[in-house]
Amino acid sequence: MKFCSQCGESVTQRIPEGDNRHRYVCDACEVIHYQNPRIIAGCLPIHQDKILLCKRSINPRAGKWTLPAGFLENGETTAAGALRETSEEANANAEIIELYTLFSLPHISQVYMFYRARLRDLNFSPGHETLETRLFDEEDIPWDELAFPVITQTLEHYYQDRKSNSFPVRSLEIVIDRRH
Amino acid sequence: MKFCSQCGESVTQRIPEGDNRHRYVCDACEVIHYQNPRIIAGCLPIHQDKILLCKRSINPRAGKWTLPAGFLENGETTAAGALRETSEEANANAEIIELYTLFSLPHISQVYMFYRARLRDLNFSPGHETLETRLFDEEDIPWDELAFPVITQTLEHYYQDRKSNSFPVRSLEIVIDRRH
Repeated sequence: MKFCSQCGESVTQRIPEGDNRHRYVCDACEVIHYQNPRIIAGCLPIHQDKILLCKRSINPRAGKWTLPAGFLENGETTAAGALRETSEEANANAEIIELYTLFSLPHISQVYMFYRARLRDLNFSPGHETLETRLFDEEDIPWDELAFPVITQTLEHYYQDRKSNSFPVRSLEIVIDRRH
Repeated sequence: MKFCSQCGESVTQRIPEGDNRHRYVCDACEVIHYQNPRIIAGCLPIHQDKILLCKRSINPRAGKWTLPAGFLENGETTAAGALRETSEEANANAEIIELYTLFSLPHISQVYMFYRARLRDLNFSPGHETLETRLFDEEDIPWDELAFPVITQTLEHYYQDRKSNSFPVRSLEIVIDRRH
């Protein structure tokens, strides 16, 4: 950030009065431009014993398999965002069962949320950011070709929890210390 | 938003190619300025049978009682943000038990998260945004003087769940349709 989005003058980084962190502050109009983590909402789409995965057509991790997920939009609930992304990336018609995993990724200022969801039908197909959509049995999950640790961990928890048919919400952290 | 924070030229609202929503886009450098919901993280601070509440010194809802909570910062986990806010608003030393409530508030593009937390000691006191900090028994909770619906609902669920000593994570929505 170099310029104030309100008045167009230059911003500088400093600690505003009463604050304890560096913020971008406009030298002209004094507006403080806060920057905050973003939410990525997605689904774990389930059909009987199978899970729907999407092969990514875009970077990062093009060609790797993911659960449908993307940035939550203003004006949207987290569940609505998860269903929208499932529709956009897999053209899939799903319904929310319940929140399942929540991950903090502080090194990239992101918070991921995955909902367990039921596919209403099998009319799914690749969306614009997807090369392929496919239902996987547990034994066919491409563990070495999953796009992100949040995908791997959500699937691992799911197959573990499925044994007891109990799916408590799991609040998790993926912490990578970039100073080392 | 009127100006591009990268180059200082004017932005206009339009639907970028491949997108389906209006965004602020720079007419000069073509940067797309996405705007996304923000996370508010907080604690339900517990000491034996009591809950710590804070009387707000600032608007909105100055003079009303709240749980310590505030905007999650970049580089922070949701649990760390909840503890930081508990420290800043109540000078309280707490430890996380577990995630408890998660609320989508789409009309203001916010997502609230409250963690159940245990007070490590009773050395709490008002922070800068707080007039008073006090431990409340259930029968003394000032239900008519609580600051926000997310506070009321978190406390209601807690006292209900405490009867069975089972505290499942609750994913909730507070939807206010501003068109009416």
